[in-house]
Amino acid sequence: MTLLVGVPDSGMLARLHPLAPAGVELLVWRLGDDPIDRRFDLLVLPYMIPAGDLDRLRGQRATVVQAQMLGYDGVAAHLPPGHLYCNAVDVHEAATGELALALILASQRGIPEFVRAAGSGTFAHERYPGLALQRVVVLGAGGVGREVAHRLVPFDVELVRVARTARSDELGEVLAWSALREVLPTADIVVVTVPLDDSTRGLVDDDFLALLAPGALLVNVARGPVVDTEALTRAVVAGRVRAALDVTDPEPLPADHPLWSAPGALISPHVGGDVGSMSRRMDRLTLAQIERLAAGRDPLNVVLRS
Amino acid sequence: MTLLVGVPDSGMLARLHPLAPAGVELLVWRLGDDPIDRRFDLLVLPYMIPAGDLDRLRGQRATVVQAQMLGYDGVAAHLPPGHLYCNAVDVHEAATGELALALILASQRGIPEFVRAAGSGTFAHERYPGLALQRVVVLGAGGVGREVAHRLVPFDVELVRVARTARSDELGEVLAWSALREVLPTADIVVVTVPLDDSTRGLVDDDFLALLAPGALLVNVARGPVVDTEALTRAVVAGRVRAALDVTDPEPLPADHPLWSAPGALISPHVGGDVGSMSRRMDRLTLAQIERLAAGRDPLNVVLRS
Repeated sequence: MTLLVGVPDSGMLARLHPLAPAGVELLVWRLGDDPIDRRFDLLVLPYMIPAGDLDRLRGQRATVVQAQMLGYDGVAAHLPPGHLYCNAVDVHEAATGELALALILASQRGIPEFVRAAGSGTFAHERYPGLALQRVVVLGAGGVGREVAHRLVPFDVELVRVARTARSDELGEVLAWSALREVLPTADIVVVTVPLDDSTRGLVDDDFLALLAPGALLVNVARGPVVDTEALTRAVVAGRVRAALDVTDPEPLPADHPLWSAPGALISPHVGGDVGSMSRRMDRLTLAQIERLAAGRDPLNVVLRS
Repeated sequence: MTLLVGVPDSGMLARLHPLAPAGVELLVWRLGDDPIDRRFDLLVLPYMIPAGDLDRLRGQRATVVQAQMLGYDGVAAHLPPGHLYCNAVDVHEAATGELALALILASQRGIPEFVRAAGSGTFAHERYPGLALQRVVVLGAGGVGREVAHRLVPFDVELVRVARTARSDELGEVLAWSALREVLPTADIVVVTVPLDDSTRGLVDDDFLALLAPGALLVNVARGPVVDTEALTRAVVAGRVRAALDVTDPEPLPADHPLWSAPGALISPHVGGDVGSMSRRMDRLTLAQIERLAAGRDPLNVVLRS
């Protein structure tokens, strides 16, 4: 049996070539390339594309479309018919959890202030709150939420987890969404890891922010539109809350947006999953999909059938 | 029995007053204040003082001198005779371990670059190495080294620990110092947590740095003179290695020192132990010492008798 696998760049082709089983034909094909007159059994998309780019799949046959992203908000509206769409489970969660800790620790220990002070050669000794003994509320107990929670454990924090449905796992209890109004006022730090959908769009709005204690830190490593940017900007610029954001709405923020320069804000350019180890993890998932398809099995992580 | 306890500021006095057992008299007395005609059973020193300031104890009688610092390099040369000197064990180790992770994660995930880019409203998307799957060598397996190691575990790193003597503990094997030349070339990240003494002064010199792989990150949360600043500056300015330093020699660095602006350097102003939770931990140690002295027992953590 022969499998035709499309990959979005020659780097991935070169890495997969020696690892793919016999009978697999690898080809570089990018969204926007001319359609070829064959059907891809598996077509890997580029990393970090807007859902609208999927319109450019039209005319190209492909059985399984494998994304390099975990979130798939907006995909249903743009995926042409006849595809199985798989998201990138186990590729970005660990790296995003890692980035959440980087943002939290940097904000709690004054790293942005030290970087700015270094610009003028200034030794800016000052006391920052730190992370130990802080109450950290993690919203979402999916892949990213668990990776965040696992990394928080040795930092001696008071960990509270809230998700759509109450449950228990190896890290303890997860509270139901209905506990949110009670939990938020007690938080020193809130980490948002929920997927973007109709139920979470605008979740962090004026009401949500008004529940936070003064000086609390809001961390968003999910998707920009989970937070109402205008509401958050008002709260941060007023000095009521602090923010550490890997994602924003719009993304990127305009160059003159007040959040870029607000003292209580730290913004990273959507690099949650984008680290040195990403290619290795993505290759591993692609190979697993190839092996399943070669064995006549369904692919992993199908989230949409169009 | 009455105990006379000197504390260096009114904040500590106010916090300890309601907690101290009956029979304890608390008094604010600072280095440099006129001597009083009584002997302190316990005298708590200010935080972050140079060892030379201990000359100003001369003329003031005190049985036990309790420092708020962990390191006590230089103390023997300045402590006037007749004192027991105790260092601050269990006050700073967790916070210093936490800062080490903040410095590591910030450096590995590009936080300083994002902070600088934010200054001009720039979304500077770029791939950074991250921490997962990196080989991290922790030098020193004392209090700080163990706090660093514990926090590294959930980040899926390859952890190697090296200390004066080989041993085993709950985190696994610690290699002996003699393994250093073999281990350093394999490190992506080296974290220095050793105390400063004659055997560690200038440990990180040209030879040490030459053993590191290009692009390796050196983290110093120990004491500045453990690193030869000129050697490190040459290596960082040349782009051979990166550095994240909470301590430097001299400290602070002069305003025009090239390390302040070198792209691969991140400098925090000696804040390893200086966080919101520090006062609470220091109060807890002071109360423990008071209880021991009140019970006629020896104090904890005596490191020098002058």
